[in-house]
Amino acid sequence: MHEPAQSNPGRIHQALTSYQLAQSLKGALELELFTHIAAGARTADEIAAKCGGTVKGVRVLCDYLTIHGLLTKTGSQYALVEDTATLLDKKSPRYMGQVAGFFLHPVMVAKYDDVAALVRNGGATDHTLSPNESMWVEFARSMAPMFDVPATIVARKLATPGVRTKVLDVAAGHGLFGIHMGLANPAARVIFQDWDNVLDVARENVARMGLSDRSNFLPGSFFDVDLGGGYDVVLLPNFLHHFDHETNVGLLKKVRAALAPAGQVAIIEFVPNEDRVSPPDGAAFAMRMLGTTPNGDAYTLAEIGSMLRAAGFGPAETHSLAPAHQQLILARS
Amino acid sequence: MHEPAQSNPGRIHQALTSYQLAQSLKGALELELFTHIAAGARTADEIAAKCGGTVKGVRVLCDYLTIHGLLTKTGSQYALVEDTATLLDKKSPRYMGQVAGFFLHPVMVAKYDDVAALVRNGGATDHTLSPNESMWVEFARSMAPMFDVPATIVARKLATPGVRTKVLDVAAGHGLFGIHMGLANPAARVIFQDWDNVLDVARENVARMGLSDRSNFLPGSFFDVDLGGGYDVVLLPNFLHHFDHETNVGLLKKVRAALAPAGQVAIIEFVPNEDRVSPPDGAAFAMRMLGTTPNGDAYTLAEIGSMLRAAGFGPAETHSLAPAHQQLILARS
Repeated sequence: MHEPAQSNPGRIHQALTSYQLAQSLKGALELELFTHIAAGARTADEIAAKCGGTVKGVRVLCDYLTIHGLLTKTGSQYALVEDTATLLDKKSPRYMGQVAGFFLHPVMVAKYDDVAALVRNGGATDHTLSPNESMWVEFARSMAPMFDVPATIVARKLATPGVRTKVLDVAAGHGLFGIHMGLANPAARVIFQDWDNVLDVARENVARMGLSDRSNFLPGSFFDVDLGGGYDVVLLPNFLHHFDHETNVGLLKKVRAALAPAGQVAIIEFVPNEDRVSPPDGAAFAMRMLGTTPNGDAYTLAEIGSMLRAAGFGPAETHSLAPAHQQLILARS
Repeated sequence: MHEPAQSNPGRIHQALTSYQLAQSLKGALELELFTHIAAGARTADEIAAKCGGTVKGVRVLCDYLTIHGLLTKTGSQYALVEDTATLLDKKSPRYMGQVAGFFLHPVMVAKYDDVAALVRNGGATDHTLSPNESMWVEFARSMAPMFDVPATIVARKLATPGVRTKVLDVAAGHGLFGIHMGLANPAARVIFQDWDNVLDVARENVARMGLSDRSNFLPGSFFDVDLGGGYDVVLLPNFLHHFDHETNVGLLKKVRAALAPAGQVAIIEFVPNEDRVSPPDGAAFAMRMLGTTPNGDAYTLAEIGSMLRAAGFGPAETHSLAPAHQQLILARS
């Protein structure tokens, strides 16, 4: 009888069932499982009593999350790891569990039902870029916690407290990038641009942070709206990746025309290395764009530099936003 | 300004988007991407020409699969890793790409849409165990490649070539476990039991392997059908995990009553260690059962031993089926 080969189907198996991991984490957040463990529930019995689950169901879910490194297990006691303690306990100031609502939204999940068609088409056909698409309201509401850290770091780099600064936050969404510029400099005025329905989320966040008297709102598509001028900083957070090179060059020309003479554009992006397969977060972002935009992509620094040059900008300067998985690219007209 | 904490949202991010990995691998299989690479296509351009994809779409998909370890990339050239070369190239005798059809079947994927409800319920409500459920036909057809290796190893352990042996393959599905017993011993007669619609798949496979004259078919639910008796071996491949302890004890009593005096039951299962969080394949199988059965589970060796004892069996003996991620548990009446 022939010797069976040693190749291991386990990894292929795991990849093909990985949707179970995404949904299990979403389910755990709905059950506030991490919050109950942070509050002292340790065994499946104790956690089940807190979350209204069955002991068996909680045990299977906690074991599954442990296998994937999101919990630890010692004997029958579960505990949080550092990331889940900081980011998935509802009582943590950095709770980001609401992002599950965006990533696992049925509309988002359905975009990947036919990846072969995405590959044949080179992008999404049924995409999320229609004006006033309600998905962006969901995005603005649920993704804000992902961007609090990078927005804080960007503001620290760009703000000069006390110096009058006029800031434009393009496709502001939750508005966090502009808000942190306002918080970091009491002499800054921030103009938030986005579709009117999405801008409501920025309006709420601005009011909550006490920045209403130093903020203006510019409703409408970036491509149609009159931006005004004299901006010291134009923020382009997570915007270029939705479009192709040519569209981005046009977009950057419009930004450049709105800048004050010494003004600068501040691009925040997930950026893959030249090999496009590292680092994982920046590189995997290209699949996010393939599934959800007709022509978007994750651009390398060389590609962003080439767009900036084509739009008339000077040399670009890059800063890591670690621990966030994004880069800040600055250029002056 | 406060120092942003160092916790890393990347892993949570990746977990919540892991459905994209499952669908991307399915898409790659539909495009026969691994097969084209095995046949010599290396760059995104070359692969796109073979699979009818856009260069951009192929590049994004290949990069994404590289990030997840299913391809390698050197410069602009992609290559298969050992597992994908052996298991996902259609020209390989061990091709298992058709399992994507089962794991990513919309009915299977939908079972995990509400994991919180599974946890509250302790199992699936809308489950796959209805008699003659067509999903099991899909299972039998598409999962066979996963079980060829373990079935070969089981047959090698249990078959004594030339010795007349009567074998029962319970819930046979694709029939591979019984078929390999027949192939390993020309003096074996194998009886395949399953629902009639599923048994059609076993019938096809038996005919293709030239075993029709030494095979019989027993259509109907295991719980209702008259098994006959005098079996030297009763195979229970991947069956106990669908049911709770008590049901399994009853089931094993029925098996024991059908065995010849020196006969043995051969249980093939995904078995977690006592900690239930290792090894990954055995342990993660519990989530598979939570989502797809009302009362099933991944059982430890101690739990299976306890079921066997309660059904009147003697001590159990365990064998690894490596490289398959399953265990063989043998017991005699």
